[in-house]
Amino acid sequence: MSDEKPDIEKLLKKADKPNRESMVWHPFYEGKIEVSLKVPVKDFSDFGVWYTPGVAKACMAIHENPEEAYRMTNKWNSVAVVSDGSRVLGLGNIGPEASLPVMEGKGMLFKYLGGVDAFPVVCKSQDPDDIIQFVKWLQPAFGGINLEDFSQPKCFRILDELRADPDINIPIWHDDQQGTASITLAGIINAAKIVGKNMKEMTYSMVGAGAANMAISRVMIAAGIPIKNIIMIDSKGILSADRPEVHDGSWLASGWDLKHKMATESNSEGRSGDMSVGMKDTDCVIACSKPGPNTITKAQISSMSTDSIALTAANPVPEIWPWEAKEAGARVVGTGRSDFDNQINNSLGFPAIFRGTLDVRATTITDGMAIAAAYSLATFAETKGIREMSETYIVPLMSETQAFIDEAVDVALKAIEEGVARLKPSRAEIEARATAIIRRSRDMTDYLMADERFIAPAPDVE
Amino acid sequence: MSDEKPDIEKLLKKADKPNRESMVWHPFYEGKIEVSLKVPVKDFSDFGVWYTPGVAKACMAIHENPEEAYRMTNKWNSVAVVSDGSRVLGLGNIGPEASLPVMEGKGMLFKYLGGVDAFPVVCKSQDPDDIIQFVKWLQPAFGGINLEDFSQPKCFRILDELRADPDINIPIWHDDQQGTASITLAGIINAAKIVGKNMKEMTYSMVGAGAANMAISRVMIAAGIPIKNIIMIDSKGILSADRPEVHDGSWLASGWDLKHKMATESNSEGRSGDMSVGMKDTDCVIACSKPGPNTITKAQISSMSTDSIALTAANPVPEIWPWEAKEAGARVVGTGRSDFDNQINNSLGFPAIFRGTLDVRATTITDGMAIAAAYSLATFAETKGIREMSETYIVPLMSETQAFIDEAVDVALKAIEEGVARLKPSRAEIEARATAIIRRSRDMTDYLMADERFIAPAPDVE
Repeated sequence: MSDEKPDIEKLLKKADKPNRESMVWHPFYEGKIEVSLKVPVKDFSDFGVWYTPGVAKACMAIHENPEEAYRMTNKWNSVAVVSDGSRVLGLGNIGPEASLPVMEGKGMLFKYLGGVDAFPVVCKSQDPDDIIQFVKWLQPAFGGINLEDFSQPKCFRILDELRADPDINIPIWHDDQQGTASITLAGIINAAKIVGKNMKEMTYSMVGAGAANMAISRVMIAAGIPIKNIIMIDSKGILSADRPEVHDGSWLASGWDLKHKMATESNSEGRSGDMSVGMKDTDCVIACSKPGPNTITKAQISSMSTDSIALTAANPVPEIWPWEAKEAGARVVGTGRSDFDNQINNSLGFPAIFRGTLDVRATTITDGMAIAAAYSLATFAETKGIREMSETYIVPLMSETQAFIDEAVDVALKAIEEGVARLKPSRAEIEARATAIIRRSRDMTDYLMADERFIAPAPDVE
Repeated sequence: MSDEKPDIEKLLKKADKPNRESMVWHPFYEGKIEVSLKVPVKDFSDFGVWYTPGVAKACMAIHENPEEAYRMTNKWNSVAVVSDGSRVLGLGNIGPEASLPVMEGKGMLFKYLGGVDAFPVVCKSQDPDDIIQFVKWLQPAFGGINLEDFSQPKCFRILDELRADPDINIPIWHDDQQGTASITLAGIINAAKIVGKNMKEMTYSMVGAGAANMAISRVMIAAGIPIKNIIMIDSKGILSADRPEVHDGSWLASGWDLKHKMATESNSEGRSGDMSVGMKDTDCVIACSKPGPNTITKAQISSMSTDSIALTAANPVPEIWPWEAKEAGARVVGTGRSDFDNQINNSLGFPAIFRGTLDVRATTITDGMAIAAAYSLATFAETKGIREMSETYIVPLMSETQAFIDEAVDVALKAIEEGVARLKPSRAEIEARATAIIRRSRDMTDYLMADERFIAPAPDVE
């Protein structure tokens, strides 16, 4: 892994390998996750406990005290991965059926990285009112809801209404908003340390004004970065109070409240123009826009301040190749890809954030908890990481299991501190439980892989 | 296992043991099922296939051809266990949260006995229109829907509307109706052989006119038993054309269409009166009413014809103790309990019926398929069972794995014959796949039980 300029042709061939493997492996395994038993079946008389007649006792315990559902069933650890497939990866509105491989993949990552039992429950309707109703009806069996791949602006309304609904007492999380924001903030925190600037005094250009960058800006502001230090750019140019959509109120009318707010309160210099104008002299560019390369140019990077930071998250190809960004003067570069340094990837967030949230039975996941997750990841990379913190190592690697455990603990403690946790175990208790659950999950996968009746080796693909 | 009269006190203490174990084991395991990975994770680069970027290829394959969801994901084997908790076991309307231990238990049985991945998805609303809408929205991720523990009469409408809906192309099954009917029919088929009577010429008294007996009667009739040979009795007495609910149309008005039909077309002798009148001289009593003992008396059994059959299914205690029914002259007795002979238990039905249904991608589960399952179970017990067919062995035991495989094959072949299957593999192919899936599921449970990190032994309970 390196950001040095590689052989482009070789790189592109390598980058295409997962695509070739995908079309062989997906039909070979016919699904990425399954249901397995957590309880023993010594003989068939055990069914008399797990099912009728014995099960009635567990039912009545819950009937008398609904909280018992968290002890008598798997609700404490179950998350529904809800999508309508209206904006899947960079593929657009491919619908709920076609979103299923992603949602199963999410379930796999939830389990492997966080020990969370997440099951895809995609909704046939794409109407936001229907989806809100669907999630409300889904509540009883689940300890939390992970919203995924909803188009904008409906994703804002769905999340906001569900979080505000007094009839909902399980946490609702939209990973494309909150998850992306959390891990991006982790990258900003450490990148600022590397370049020796104060994160709260830095200026930021944000390329793209979709769900991801909107949520990132909201969480950045919640973390203490002044809104006036931000310049946000959409496909029509820099957001400012001069934009026609501010004057005619069209953003407000169509559910883009935060975009309207950004236009009126960010960009204190009142710049107007395109990306080149917006990025000039800023300390950090955060791009969640369209796949590159050349969505951002070397000249635009060069126009930024000295020791600039470029977090370019488009998939599968970042807005600018990392080596080009470096050649142009960026000192710290992060992307969404695992084959470059500084992978700014949601998978570092949601599994552990839910682990911590579920383990204290938090009723919601606050921005404070998302920020705690960001600081946790940043602190881990700075103080306990597998490598020394540097330009090429600002966030933990996916293989650093302890980073996930620390993150779960920090999120859980923040939930307790903010008063949204229904359980209040000690730090040591939280850590012990998170460690046991996450390690068990990885060990169980290894154990199943050790016998090919259960998980066969993947076929070789050229 | 015997129907001989045992020490009642000892029996009751034994019968209570699952209740004591339940309250220790349920919180010990904190859930009966979990999500596990079906695919290997050799290293973190595999995530690039299972998730972004590689997963996009699988998504687009489904987007181009929705049937590909059955190859690229676990949809082919996923079933939602849907309930609103409005009539759970014999516990009444305890609500969706409190129904969860049963629904997880169902998921466990689905997997262990049929290799089916069934996940509880209970609905917070108990309104039938809402439930119908909920199921329609749930479709994309699931290959089938198992409805469970809905109160009547709404359960009839929910099932009928969903099965008739042209927008639904996955099978919808209400186990308390169709499942119970299928396994009861299996019992009738072999009990008739034992007593040397022609099933289609026998007379039947049916005690209870709830969802179970209504569905049993419908399937009996579909299997060739004349409706006029049946006498059905509800809490107010024998159903007949003289009942006030027929005259005022109140059953029709409130969704009890089948009950109205039974009242006008069954009971050809025009009997009226109570259970004692209804059961007199009939060849077979089928009771799905309220827990006994003494819901049915010895005198009532004695009044039946010679060599009578008593299938008394109430849980946890049958309408009459088996030894009492035998003392009173019943020759074949079946109950819902695993600790007596002839357990007439839905678990012999739904796991294999879904196995066969899913393996040919049937769009529905017809009454013909439910009847095929009944004949399959009966034939197995008669020709391949672990014991010789007799008064004390009319249906297979839960431990007879091959019975489930045969049943899955017979259901699948019937689906093909009836034109509701989207795949048409050969008998040998169906059997090979069902065998592999069911054996893998049991082996996997044993394998996980072999390492207590994954499934620990159950604590001892006195």
